[in-house]
Amino acid sequence: MDRLEIKRANDMHVHLRQDDMLAQVLPHTISQCAHALVMPNITPAVLTADDLVAYRQSILALLPDGSTFKPLMTFKVAPTTSPAEITKLKAQGAVAGKLYPEGVTTNSEGGVTDFKALYPVYEAMQEAGLVLCLHGEMPGVFSLDRESKFLAVLRDIASRFADLRIVLEHATTAEAIACVKELPANVACTLTVHHLYLTLDDVIGDRLNPHAFCKPVAKRPEDRDALVAAALSGNSKFFLGSDSAPHTVANKECDCGAAGVYTAPVLLPALLELFEKHCKLELLEAFTSGFAAKFYGLPEHKETIVLVQKSWTVPEQYGDDKSGLSVKPFLAGKTLRWQVG
Amino acid sequence: MDRLEIKRANDMHVHLRQDDMLAQVLPHTISQCAHALVMPNITPAVLTADDLVAYRQSILALLPDGSTFKPLMTFKVAPTTSPAEITKLKAQGAVAGKLYPEGVTTNSEGGVTDFKALYPVYEAMQEAGLVLCLHGEMPGVFSLDRESKFLAVLRDIASRFADLRIVLEHATTAEAIACVKELPANVACTLTVHHLYLTLDDVIGDRLNPHAFCKPVAKRPEDRDALVAAALSGNSKFFLGSDSAPHTVANKECDCGAAGVYTAPVLLPALLELFEKHCKLELLEAFTSGFAAKFYGLPEHKETIVLVQKSWTVPEQYGDDKSGLSVKPFLAGKTLRWQVG
Repeated sequence: MDRLEIKRANDMHVHLRQDDMLAQVLPHTISQCAHALVMPNITPAVLTADDLVAYRQSILALLPDGSTFKPLMTFKVAPTTSPAEITKLKAQGAVAGKLYPEGVTTNSEGGVTDFKALYPVYEAMQEAGLVLCLHGEMPGVFSLDRESKFLAVLRDIASRFADLRIVLEHATTAEAIACVKELPANVACTLTVHHLYLTLDDVIGDRLNPHAFCKPVAKRPEDRDALVAAALSGNSKFFLGSDSAPHTVANKECDCGAAGVYTAPVLLPALLELFEKHCKLELLEAFTSGFAAKFYGLPEHKETIVLVQKSWTVPEQYGDDKSGLSVKPFLAGKTLRWQVG
Repeated sequence: MDRLEIKRANDMHVHLRQDDMLAQVLPHTISQCAHALVMPNITPAVLTADDLVAYRQSILALLPDGSTFKPLMTFKVAPTTSPAEITKLKAQGAVAGKLYPEGVTTNSEGGVTDFKALYPVYEAMQEAGLVLCLHGEMPGVFSLDRESKFLAVLRDIASRFADLRIVLEHATTAEAIACVKELPANVACTLTVHHLYLTLDDVIGDRLNPHAFCKPVAKRPEDRDALVAAALSGNSKFFLGSDSAPHTVANKECDCGAAGVYTAPVLLPALLELFEKHCKLELLEAFTSGFAAKFYGLPEHKETIVLVQKSWTVPEQYGDDKSGLSVKPFLAGKTLRWQVG
């Protein structure tokens, strides 16, 4: 087989950024995706219905004529979020609220430390039919334990709000996978492309590699294996959320060490190669679009994408240094077997 | 108490580098140490008696008139090392041989993979009264497990060569501390300044921090606590080997991620503060000079150093960028309570 036609992806976790960076990275996502759940941790963050409308407008303004790509908008579930704002956000088309625990990742300052204080907000989201997306790391805990320690919060919210749809974002540990499997059907889990490839050794095993550094940080080989097994399992609780997160090369390399991996350019080629390697190609489409559509209740889309078996070398970077927008994609310099046709 | 006079340190593991970098970093070591065990992983490495003589000469040539500092010379225990060379090395005043497993740290290419193949070399070192210094990490293993997996090699060599003095260098795990305690008196262990301060969180817990990155990488908080407990225990098996390892700022930050922490400038001030904090000041001198002298059979030295309680801010860097030799010291920008008087 040298050609594969599947439905365009639903990428249920992507950072599109703002302004010039948005303009630069958006084409990679719209070329492969039907829908993308756009994270709200821009500056200033998407907190209100007005913020959400403005951010969506800035994205829509950049879509080429005739594009069928649909950004799914989110807002930040912050300590200041009110049930009244939830109603407004829903009315303006919000799909999900994203909860960032305090200080755990890029632009998560002013995040949540008291998860129980937000019960009224979860309640309002449940009533409004909004999805609660969780960055599942407990602040103030040793980095490798942050996700494991957060699972108690996930269990608590899931047990108290049985009709609230909850997504544990970008799982990185075998423990998280087991927890999501065990919880009821209202709890799902996104898996990123890079966490299906990387372990902590890619960050610290040889020389320090900022381009493999992300939050939550990649864990042990047995954790990565558990993520791959979940992605290949055909269990509809596990679906794609790339967490594609562009940072400039300067912000990555020059003693800044920003966390995030920019996977949008290689999204489907990298996943296809992984599923093919494990002889599970027949499950790829469900992982990249079907399971997410089912969980989120998205309209069924018909648009497809063709991938052709033709090797290509992933560019070392997109954008030039002069513009200050150079970003290094995941798998830069590596040769992939498949490309977008 | 605002003044402390103790014997000058014996730093049993230091990287002095070569040429201009040697000239830049040497003063920090000679200002605080009576002896320093100088690591042989320069380029090209110290492999033969001739190499050792030349490297020692390059160091001695830089000592100020009247300096009593004595560099203790080492050679690299490589797959090519012969028992005959051991005899020559001993004759030229070698104190120890350093074994680097293949690829585990800076300039460890061409390192050892078959530890048993070197039995004749260990035998020759035992007969010559040379110390075997081990970088205790098993190649090809997940980074966080490399030290633990290496302990079987340490146990094997220690059990077969009961009269060979062996040092497990720069221990980073509670498991290594327990192993060294349990092995006979011919096995000791160096502890670095930075591993007594750092955990993996200092490298990856927030933004990526290349200046806290070293090999072996710092581990979990409970590992760090075990190292601190060993340093404060008064057990003569555990003594100072700073592994002070200067890399240029460019080599650290610009997508190069070199491994190593430059602790020489803050060596005794940082240790004093730690011992003082734990109310163990009376054990500092044994940790920084006495235990090493006993294990290595060094001549007892009388030279002392005075530390005064006067706060200072550690410089952001030594050397200038123009010369290409700028290095950032450990605890750069931090205020320390004690300084060299």
